[in-house]
Amino acid sequence: MPGEDLRSLRGMSEAERAKVDVAIVANPDPADLTLLPNLKWVHSLWAGVERLMAELQGFTAPVVRLTDPELARNMAEAVLAWTYYLQRDMPAYAQAQREKTWAPRPYVKPSQLRVGLLGLGKLGGRAAERLREAGFQVSGWSRSLKDLEGVRCHAGDAGLAALLGEADILVSLLPLTAQTRGLLNAARFAQMKPGAQIINFGRGPVIDDAALLAALQSGQIRHAVLDVFAVEPLPADHPYWTAPGVTVLPHISAETDRDTASALVAKNIAAWRSDGSLPETVDFAAGY
Amino acid sequence: MPGEDLRSLRGMSEAERAKVDVAIVANPDPADLTLLPNLKWVHSLWAGVERLMAELQGFTAPVVRLTDPELARNMAEAVLAWTYYLQRDMPAYAQAQREKTWAPRPYVKPSQLRVGLLGLGKLGGRAAERLREAGFQVSGWSRSLKDLEGVRCHAGDAGLAALLGEADILVSLLPLTAQTRGLLNAARFAQMKPGAQIINFGRGPVIDDAALLAALQSGQIRHAVLDVFAVEPLPADHPYWTAPGVTVLPHISAETDRDTASALVAKNIAAWRSDGSLPETVDFAAGY
Repeated sequence: MPGEDLRSLRGMSEAERAKVDVAIVANPDPADLTLLPNLKWVHSLWAGVERLMAELQGFTAPVVRLTDPELARNMAEAVLAWTYYLQRDMPAYAQAQREKTWAPRPYVKPSQLRVGLLGLGKLGGRAAERLREAGFQVSGWSRSLKDLEGVRCHAGDAGLAALLGEADILVSLLPLTAQTRGLLNAARFAQMKPGAQIINFGRGPVIDDAALLAALQSGQIRHAVLDVFAVEPLPADHPYWTAPGVTVLPHISAETDRDTASALVAKNIAAWRSDGSLPETVDFAAGY
Repeated sequence: MPGEDLRSLRGMSEAERAKVDVAIVANPDPADLTLLPNLKWVHSLWAGVERLMAELQGFTAPVVRLTDPELARNMAEAVLAWTYYLQRDMPAYAQAQREKTWAPRPYVKPSQLRVGLLGLGKLGGRAAERLREAGFQVSGWSRSLKDLEGVRCHAGDAGLAALLGEADILVSLLPLTAQTRGLLNAARFAQMKPGAQIINFGRGPVIDDAALLAALQSGQIRHAVLDVFAVEPLPADHPYWTAPGVTVLPHISAETDRDTASALVAKNIAAWRSDGSLPETVDFAAGY
């Protein structure tokens, strides 16, 4: 980034902080941003910005989220890989191996399964495409109704009930907002097919943990692959670690790619310097 | 199958057996076929026919293997799904969960990994295509040199050494023949990249089990996904069940699809009745 002076916030004097016009952040303590009085805008290296949104009341500088095609590719691949994990019964075979049991299970083709995606933005849209290419039936749900080729699209409250009722595997890529917090609760799990499976690659608090544990216990939900949690790292005494039917992942479904993300950030900052233009910024009212 | 009289061999009288002209088999005891004196040809419901080949010395009736496009699709999907299992470190995350350890690992893109396929027939060719579409680098090895778009093809002894030296994930789809029995032995494992991973969806005895266990122990091979074994079901006291770095599957990678396979068999028999034609038959000298 020729012409730019890149510094870490830590160790900067007040005079130096006053010169900062752009902040590049990764899930920062929002209070840090208030140390920069002349900040013009913020570039997040993460796609999720709910911590900034929740705590930056009255903040008016535009926030640009990372919308990296490489991140979308990686997330779509993660969704496909872990969908295969559930479709091909990998958790059951791991359990059978622990019991030294030779127990073939019937194979279910992708064309016999419907994957329901919660969230059809840049990540969800690309995931829907990959799943469709792999032969799965795909449904999707979003705040405003989308029209995606080969995807059964739903929106709104009634649409959510419809999607939950038809999905064999439910994948949440939802951002955390006031509307999505606790969205997947006991009532929602009860609307799902008995024995449905869940993947959460969005944000932890979208799931009501106690309700999910109860639904796993009753068999209403057969298996849950959880990559995100209300508190991360997941505390050592959390029941998810040992609950039957839970796969715990350490927030790795789709990490930011250093090469592509830094190139994007450099390009966005150069464009702003040259003509003041910014990519699409976060809608503070929607929260993402 | 109108006009056909379908019977199980068991319970047939000698006179009835003498009328049988076509046998439809699934990994039968080869001795059973000698009970059918007027047999014209055999239709196997399996792609692998090594048991027939090994024990039917002097048998001259043509044997048709199942070459079902649905089987090839299923096998290619299995190869992709379990390649993701290794690429995305699913075994390591399962181990971390058992230890209640939050331990993110670096993500390695498909474009940074090379998958080496042993066997480039109908199943291997389709698997190579799926892996390529998913962004993996792909090499392949076959008895006679193939030319597949985007696949680095090898053949012969020198070609095998080259493939073993460049594969991060080695996938065997090889049939069992005199040439492939014990092919993957200590010397071959030593030719591989340190920490390479293996998937065996072909036939168990292609791998020298003691050599693989030693290579896993030393870390030369990081993980092996084994779906096929010299003795199936895998005996309860076999070290594979508990060896670190081994995933045991009960021969489920790609099962015969009852619907598509029975339709193919009916079509092949009808064609033979009408004009005496047969699909490609097994080459007894090659053994598959």
